[in-house]
Amino acid sequence: MERVAVLSDVADVIDSRKGGDPKTSYVAKLFSKAPDGALKKVGEEAAEVIMAAKDGDRDHLIYETADLWFHCMVVLSQAGIRPEEVLAELARREGTSGLVEKANRKES
Amino acid sequence: MERVAVLSDVADVIDSRKGGDPKTSYVAKLFSKAPDGALKKVGEEAAEVIMAAKDGDRDHLIYETADLWFHCMVVLSQAGIRPEEVLAELARREGTSGLVEKANRKES
Amino acid sequence: MERVAVLSDVADVIDSRKGGDPKTSYVAKLFSKAPDGALKKVGEEAAEVIMAAKDGDRDHLIYETADLWFHCMVVLSQAGIRPEEVLAELARREGTSGLVEKANRKES
Amino acid sequence: MERVAVLSDVADVIDSRKGGDPKTSYVAKLFSKAPDGALKKVGEEAAEVIMAAKDGDRDHLIYETADLWFHCMVVLSQAGIRPEEVLAELARREGTSGLVEKANRKES
Repeated sequence: MERVAVLSDVADVIDSRKGGDPKTSYVAKLFSKAPDGALKKVGEEAAEVIMAAKDGDRDHLIYETADLWFHCMVVLSQAGIRPEEVLAELARREGTSGLVEKANRKES
Repeated sequence: MERVAVLSDVADVIDSRKGGDPKTSYVAKLFSKAPDGALKKVGEEAAEVIMAAKDGDRDHLIYETADLWFHCMVVLSQAGIRPEEVLAELARREGTSGLVEKANRKES
Repeated sequence: MERVAVLSDVADVIDSRKGGDPKTSYVAKLFSKAPDGALKKVGEEAAEVIMAAKDGDRDHLIYETADLWFHCMVVLSQAGIRPEEVLAELARREGTSGLVEKANRKES
Repeated sequence: MERVAVLSDVADVIDSRKGGDPKTSYVAKLFSKAPDGALKKVGEEAAEVIMAAKDGDRDHLIYETADLWFHCMVVLSQAGIRPEEVLAELARREGTSGLVEKANRKES
């Protein structure tokens, strides 16, 4: 898999925390409560993104989106998935006119 | 801002849909209901990520994470934010030992 | 179980939709996609509650909270749980100084 | 407003914590971070409800739904709304065939 800027590095760091000490590593602590620990954070950080957007607070929105994506990557790591695979899925959609496709699909 | 794989391209496509026809473009439809349309989807897609993770369904988890990140990028676009800025925030944390820092900060 | 105002009636209506026609009943449609259909709506309606609260829109907040609780009751029904059991849990906490207890527990 | 079982009492307790000491009362602590403190918990508890439902863990689902409804009531209290008003909205829908109405409305 071709590496992508930042995300590949962050995923490496996350992966390296597996089996680490929950007392000294935040990520190791999330892993120790897998899978629910990180998933709970996804719910919480999604709420934070929504609040920052409603506040119109640009810096806060960047910060909270980074938090949400980071915790998503912990969830991915728990499932043995690399962020490059998520980007490949996004690229696939774009390449196959995915965005238009989605426009035509019924909302469910 | 240096471009990053896939995300920069997806953001360009999203940005290009501003003012588009809500009847033919899914993204233009979200923009026409800004900011709540895309934010509602963030809540829904976060739920989908959680469900796919609990199901242990690898492909579905990749798909739903792509969906969540995509709708986050629509939210970012509404606020005039590029995904490169979110990656810069992630890089900043890593560079300044951000992950360790986070381990030490009180959960809020 | 002692019946409680409104919620017992709403739960009865929801329960009565089991096996109903997804084309004519919204609840039957959710049941036909159990468990994920209603769970996805919990994520979406939670987002709506957050947005209505941030907007300071009183009527909208009442409406969206009703929507969230309603979809929670569909989730409960799918699991064979009555809303009276949720109220009993709330009463139990209050009776045993549950709110204070929670104040003392570490946030997780 | 006619009082309803449990919810009216819980709302009274929540209301009574306004201006309380954040160090000794969990609810006062949420109020001290209003409105975002309680809203963040709505996102987190919605995620917990989803996870408990996916686990098929009946007792946990009751517990987490109670948690979600409790934090919704803190959000309501912040906006000066009583849970009886949410029940009135649910009753109104039922009385006016609201559930059927919803089945016919376009999903948004």
